[in-house]
Amino acid sequence: MSIARIAFTPGEPAGIGPDLAVRLAQLDWPIELVVIANSELLQQRAKMLSLPLKIIPYHSERPPQAQQAGTLTVCELPLGAAVIPQQLNTDNANYVLQTLQRAAQGCLTKEFAGVVTGPVHKGVINEAGHQFSGHTEFFAEISHTEQVVMMLATEGLRVALVTTHLPLVEVPEAITQAKVTRVVEIVAHDLEQKWGIQQPRILVCGLNPHAGEQGHLGREELDHISPAIEALQQAGLHVSGPYPADTVFQPHYLEHADTVVAMYHDQGLPVLKYKGFGNAINITLGLPFIRTSVDHGTALDKAATNNVDDRSAILALRTAIDMVTK
Amino acid sequence: MSIARIAFTPGEPAGIGPDLAVRLAQLDWPIELVVIANSELLQQRAKMLSLPLKIIPYHSERPPQAQQAGTLTVCELPLGAAVIPQQLNTDNANYVLQTLQRAAQGCLTKEFAGVVTGPVHKGVINEAGHQFSGHTEFFAEISHTEQVVMMLATEGLRVALVTTHLPLVEVPEAITQAKVTRVVEIVAHDLEQKWGIQQPRILVCGLNPHAGEQGHLGREELDHISPAIEALQQAGLHVSGPYPADTVFQPHYLEHADTVVAMYHDQGLPVLKYKGFGNAINITLGLPFIRTSVDHGTALDKAATNNVDDRSAILALRTAIDMVTK
Repeated sequence: MSIARIAFTPGEPAGIGPDLAVRLAQLDWPIELVVIANSELLQQRAKMLSLPLKIIPYHSERPPQAQQAGTLTVCELPLGAAVIPQQLNTDNANYVLQTLQRAAQGCLTKEFAGVVTGPVHKGVINEAGHQFSGHTEFFAEISHTEQVVMMLATEGLRVALVTTHLPLVEVPEAITQAKVTRVVEIVAHDLEQKWGIQQPRILVCGLNPHAGEQGHLGREELDHISPAIEALQQAGLHVSGPYPADTVFQPHYLEHADTVVAMYHDQGLPVLKYKGFGNAINITLGLPFIRTSVDHGTALDKAATNNVDDRSAILALRTAIDMVTK
Repeated sequence: MSIARIAFTPGEPAGIGPDLAVRLAQLDWPIELVVIANSELLQQRAKMLSLPLKIIPYHSERPPQAQQAGTLTVCELPLGAAVIPQQLNTDNANYVLQTLQRAAQGCLTKEFAGVVTGPVHKGVINEAGHQFSGHTEFFAEISHTEQVVMMLATEGLRVALVTTHLPLVEVPEAITQAKVTRVVEIVAHDLEQKWGIQQPRILVCGLNPHAGEQGHLGREELDHISPAIEALQQAGLHVSGPYPADTVFQPHYLEHADTVVAMYHDQGLPVLKYKGFGNAINITLGLPFIRTSVDHGTALDKAATNNVDDRSAILALRTAIDMVTK
């Protein structure tokens, strides 16, 4: 089997993203890891961390080589300004966007089998005059994808969300039969295609406490969620629910499931992050390519220190590798 | 120190409540456990479970004796009809309510130091013509308590709720500064008075994802929750927040907290029940007496079988004992 290529974008250069790239480079990986970044920045960060780093300039026409510990293949992009760790600088906002664009371009042309993203700082990008609401939206737009789904995962649990960053008051009206149907279809499709899970088993939460208690505590289950589930079942999907969110995460249910679909952010993510314990990742479903991500921020105050938690970055890369080799 | 008396109401007689009473009776306890029930029903259930049970009729004037394994002190009440395990019967609805009334009465007159409740079946009580929406409301009404707070607890975690069984669409408008303030005050008061925790540390969740991101994802934090927290802090309480619900349950925060206050049911309970793993209890705060409860239902299909999980009942009693001896 040929070696796959996976891109890594470290994100905000003043944050811990470059540290994560240097740390990923300390390990062997069964794929060619291509870091899209400025090599001088990476060298400088490696030096600050007292870690070895031999830069290999990336050439797309060279057959991919598996990543060897201590080396790093870098797809070179110029910085807008020299980087001072822990200090945001709007002059580098364009550089960050360029790294994402290069990664997406490579994914769309199959140059890369997927992309793993480090943390960006939305604030400084917007301050620099670029409209940017996040990686997910950026990749959706550049690939002309209408509906993407945010999934968080950790060892032993995956949670996908029907709605993401909405004020709670706007959640109920966003839960429609069409929306639930589309999200579950994308989840089922990607679990089959990207994870290689045949007939994935999907548990769908209700919107209201106790999944609405047959309409006593809200009607969205009866009017939207149950009809969506029934239609999906008739289409042959292994979908069930709606389940009360406070019981669906019990082992009794999870043992027989490949993912939980929650209706909103705080219904699904507290359990996942509790279980994940700093070791969770974010995956965008519905894109025409694989994208995994750390689930944390830029942690500016930890950049260039050796006090960086790289578990999420390692899990994000490992998950992307599992997916590209399926 | 004198021995305290704690009442136990087994709840629905066709469910697993009588089984739980018989199982609690198999252990020694450092308090007098008074089961408010029909002794013939308990004898019959013990026989079905092949467990020893010596009934001691309860007399309020006798000094309390610590509970000895194999015996059970019973405060006698007549059934409405013979009980067939697993079969609901509206003729026994009044009996169930009588047991609750007797327990509440005894708590209000200090005859009992507190009450532990088994599971009732709201449906059959209402079908029998009694308006009954749950233990919590029943005890609040009988004790003329305006505001009670529902707390769920398991080993190492307590979660109190600002709103409980509301359709999600009604939650945002129910979150007012006055409501948050009152709930936190009750939580702080009861943690001090009933648990004996000096200066309890209380973490308050936001309502919206990421606790509203300074108003970008909803304004309830700025308009209601933060003002409540600031006023409580000025009043000397150890309260902080609003925290994003997907990070507040990380060990980093929980290590330094006595309880989390969540804004609504599915924001707080999935993590608690995930962590509790069948071993959680329900506690009503704000009442003039101690009340703990199992957090599960009547489990009709398991009544009179030996396939009953009694961990929640044991934890509910143990917690009540801890509280009465503080």
